[in-house]
Amino acid sequence: MLEFQTLEKEKFTIISFNLKDILEPNILENLELPKINNTKGVILDGRGPIWLYCYMVHHYHTTKFIATHDPRLGGAVVVETHSPEFKVGNVLKLEE
Amino acid sequence: MLEFQTLEKEKFTIISFNLKDILEPNILENLELPKINNTKGVILDGRGPIWLYCYMVHHYHTTKFIATHDPRLGGAVVVETHSPEFKVGNVLKLEE
Repeated sequence: MLEFQTLEKEKFTIISFNLKDILEPNILENLELPKINNTKGVILDGRGPIWLYCYMVHHYHTTKFIATHDPRLGGAVVVETHSPEFKVGNVLKLEE
Repeated sequence: MLEFQTLEKEKFTIISFNLKDILEPNILENLELPKINNTKGVILDGRGPIWLYCYMVHHYHTTKFIATHDPRLGGAVVVETHSPEFKVGNVLKLEE
């Protein structure tokens, strides 16, 4: 149904997901998300519904920052942060 | 650029947005979002980038619950909640 992969970078973890089927919202009731290092940021990456992204943003809100990958921008937009180094609206390259 | 409208329902406020142009992420640096009643939930509705939704979900995290409208589902999916009445993954009709 929904598979996650994580890739460690120096300052953030990239969490990528793949959908095998169309998702039903009740998947959120028992969704297990990858455990990550909260002292780094997290970038969410994948083709999926807005509600999945929003759920994940809340789940990871204790991390250093959260950004969502936007392929049209060629990077990930910081949407929430606890670090002055990463400001909301900044666009991060996933290769960094 | 980006206009918001709010519609009060009994148990939630619907915040709808319209994009006049393609949005640049730096709009988040100074974005003014509608003030709402935190004792109710909020439903986010509009065609816009995932990062805008995720930013708004964080902004409204002190409300009773947050749901994002998914037209394909014909309702809004609860992505975050502080109320046992509204569970994550529930789909709410906007007409309720």
